[in-house]
Amino acid sequence: MPRPPRAPRTVADVTATTVTPTSAGAATPAWLDELTAALGRDSVLTDPDVTAAYARDQAMLAPAGLPAAVVLPRTTADVSATMRIAHAHGVPVVPRGAGSGLAGAANAVDGAITLVMTRMDTVLEVSTADRLAVVQPGVVNKALRDEVAQHGLFYPPDPSSYDWCTIGGNLANNSGGLCCVKYGVTTDYVLGLEVVLADGRVLRTGRRTVKGVAGYDLPKLFVGSEGTLGVITEATLSLRPAPQKPVTLVATFSSTAQTGQVVEAAVSCGVVPSLFEVMDRTCIRAVDDLLKADLDRDAHALLVAQSDAGGEAAVAEMEVLAQLCRDAGCELVHVTDDAAEGDLLLAARRMALPALEQLGTTLIDDVAVPRSRIAAFLDGCDAVAGERGLVIGVVGHAGDGNMHPTICFDPADTEQAERAHRAFDDILELGLSMGGTITGEHGVGNLKSEWLEREIGPVSLDVHRSIKRALDPAGLLNPGKMFSAG
Amino acid sequence: MPRPPRAPRTVADVTATTVTPTSAGAATPAWLDELTAALGRDSVLTDPDVTAAYARDQAMLAPAGLPAAVVLPRTTADVSATMRIAHAHGVPVVPRGAGSGLAGAANAVDGAITLVMTRMDTVLEVSTADRLAVVQPGVVNKALRDEVAQHGLFYPPDPSSYDWCTIGGNLANNSGGLCCVKYGVTTDYVLGLEVVLADGRVLRTGRRTVKGVAGYDLPKLFVGSEGTLGVITEATLSLRPAPQKPVTLVATFSSTAQTGQVVEAAVSCGVVPSLFEVMDRTCIRAVDDLLKADLDRDAHALLVAQSDAGGEAAVAEMEVLAQLCRDAGCELVHVTDDAAEGDLLLAARRMALPALEQLGTTLIDDVAVPRSRIAAFLDGCDAVAGERGLVIGVVGHAGDGNMHPTICFDPADTEQAERAHRAFDDILELGLSMGGTITGEHGVGNLKSEWLEREIGPVSLDVHRSIKRALDPAGLLNPGKMFSAG
Repeated sequence: MPRPPRAPRTVADVTATTVTPTSAGAATPAWLDELTAALGRDSVLTDPDVTAAYARDQAMLAPAGLPAAVVLPRTTADVSATMRIAHAHGVPVVPRGAGSGLAGAANAVDGAITLVMTRMDTVLEVSTADRLAVVQPGVVNKALRDEVAQHGLFYPPDPSSYDWCTIGGNLANNSGGLCCVKYGVTTDYVLGLEVVLADGRVLRTGRRTVKGVAGYDLPKLFVGSEGTLGVITEATLSLRPAPQKPVTLVATFSSTAQTGQVVEAAVSCGVVPSLFEVMDRTCIRAVDDLLKADLDRDAHALLVAQSDAGGEAAVAEMEVLAQLCRDAGCELVHVTDDAAEGDLLLAARRMALPALEQLGTTLIDDVAVPRSRIAAFLDGCDAVAGERGLVIGVVGHAGDGNMHPTICFDPADTEQAERAHRAFDDILELGLSMGGTITGEHGVGNLKSEWLEREIGPVSLDVHRSIKRALDPAGLLNPGKMFSAG
Repeated sequence: MPRPPRAPRTVADVTATTVTPTSAGAATPAWLDELTAALGRDSVLTDPDVTAAYARDQAMLAPAGLPAAVVLPRTTADVSATMRIAHAHGVPVVPRGAGSGLAGAANAVDGAITLVMTRMDTVLEVSTADRLAVVQPGVVNKALRDEVAQHGLFYPPDPSSYDWCTIGGNLANNSGGLCCVKYGVTTDYVLGLEVVLADGRVLRTGRRTVKGVAGYDLPKLFVGSEGTLGVITEATLSLRPAPQKPVTLVATFSSTAQTGQVVEAAVSCGVVPSLFEVMDRTCIRAVDDLLKADLDRDAHALLVAQSDAGGEAAVAEMEVLAQLCRDAGCELVHVTDDAAEGDLLLAARRMALPALEQLGTTLIDDVAVPRSRIAAFLDGCDAVAGERGLVIGVVGHAGDGNMHPTICFDPADTEQAERAHRAFDDILELGLSMGGTITGEHGVGNLKSEWLEREIGPVSLDVHRSIKRALDPAGLLNPGKMFSAG
């Protein structure tokens, strides 16, 4: 982890080392004294051995600096005070949750405060009558799911990291997950937000009602803005009734492209599974190696789907899908209403990324393509793997066209690493050429900011910059993330 | 209709009269010559007898000016040229569709161009494989619904004016309708937009994919912005599979509050009807007078609900609701899978507003409250009617808490009209006091801009103004609508 040299008193150059209270003799910047006075010593950390732990998220190859200070607020007032002080002194602030992100959006910026929201972790309210929850940003996704389940309710967004990622991070990244094919993404569940603005003012926007059009849809602007427009301190989230017990389908194919055909046929004929996932042979074998799950190691692709339509309806829905699998020439298809068997199949899917990590360092791509292009995209990924001479495991949310081709490589082999990076770009290029997007759910962060410009073009980039300037004129919130200030 | 006096050459004072080409001797402003040269004479109308027809929407009591010119573009290039010329000359522009709005958002501004999008009325694409449609803004809602239905698809948003309102207007207002309780509102169906910005640049934002997080969610910012941030010239809309044949429930009650209890119980127990509407006795009688529909004129409230879950599941869903109606003490409840009978009941609901219009001039309120407060809100409306000595018919989307208490009065009776206005405000006040919003789906326009400030507060208003300035620094797009420039 590179640490910049000592250069005290210049805010832009403030480093973790210079601001450590324990480094006797070094001047403590005024903003740090003010922060400590306002929030208390245990909420403002500067020991570089501690702050280094907050330097980066899970996008291992995205650049990261070292926080000048790590602030752990307990209340909205703490966040407001932090932003007010940072704003007065021109100190940048990087908001973050648990750090499960995959695009470097939470990566530290040298000289900046990293604002860690994990202590604000209370579910403030669950209302069955209004079918909503009010939560703080540090609540872990799974904790919310578990708590609302006790009320017979369901919070659908379920990123793979759902057992440790936080709702605040989910909001900042508009996270998806396995449920999206039927239930949409985080933004679809946001009714209202409390947001601390760049200058410390507290904005309450949105509402507790199902519908409402009083003013611009500010909640949905903050959702997915990766901490560049404000710090979310509270969210009012709509919930759904608990889903019915799922019926699960698994099918194997002799080519990945066949799975794309099944998805296209399913979309066209109107089946909407509650889960619809794909894994290619690389993933199947990696998972089987890891879990000893007795998967068919000779299959080239595996589909897992579920219906939560309930009883007969769910079975009927999966039987329609089974027929589509047969029509596409599947090798095997199996439908079960056995919950344990369904859980096992789902566990295999959820373990795909950890399993691929056994094969080397992974570069996880996150391309979404129109559903009619899934088969072509899967073929294209095969071609990239061949051309670049690399192992690429494809796992993804087949039903919504959001694929995670994952490149496995040995970082010690410079030439191979170089090929891996090229393959990563090839796949983004392929996705864009099919009318897709460079990121379906992982976000832009500092990993794909150059690609963002390419996808959205100069007019949209200019609109992004105008909005950023409108809400954060000094450019203090998560600088360098998503797009450059221009 | 007031017309300002002649004051040629000052752009801010340009009036319909001064810019009429037929008014010989009056100087034609340069911008009008440029517009006519760019778009052709048949796309730029200035005859005041013609332009007056574009002066206002359906919010009869909202103030309206008279357009200096009415422009009817045929292409995005026409819209871009209009905005470029308007921008160069500092002429304000009011975008509008069919004019079915209920908040004055499309009302003309003196001296401004009214940009009428109705000629851009082509459904450019319907894709079953990607389950989406690409449409121009002038497409009528029902025309889109009918066209996608031919492909076995469904575009849910269905405002009451669905047989004449346009998709562009629906987007600008984030329109709802009867489907919202299960299927959400317009913004939930927007994947991508083409928008002409205030300076004439063309922004393409969003995507064709189901998921995508590359950049800010600009489409959802433009949706519901009432033409104050840009002119929508194309939309990519997601579609759903065609719903199943509905099963319909009707129930009558001896108090409106009982219907609120049924909604709360339904929400709590997880029933999600595809339609869930309420009418009070005033509406029941007005509709019965108009349609001779043999409704129970003694009932104090009537609920209509549908399930499109299909077959047995739909019947089961409506039976659960029927039991909740009985639990709440309904007078009568009836479930039918007869489509014709269901259509008849729905027609009664859809005719509620036209029926109320037979009782006098109507002031239609549009308050959404949290679903747990519906019963209290309905009681409150009764109380307002009593206190102000007025007829108030309540009709609304019970299932999502969006109510339309409609005040019927005689505008010739000044004192009664004054009481009607006070009652209108009483109801907004009541909604806000219950954690509701001043507009669930009709928008703010120039009818409720002062109330908007009250609902969202000074910080949010300031954020709104910042965003407006960022995208429309000269304040040319639909000035004075939603909120004042400040």
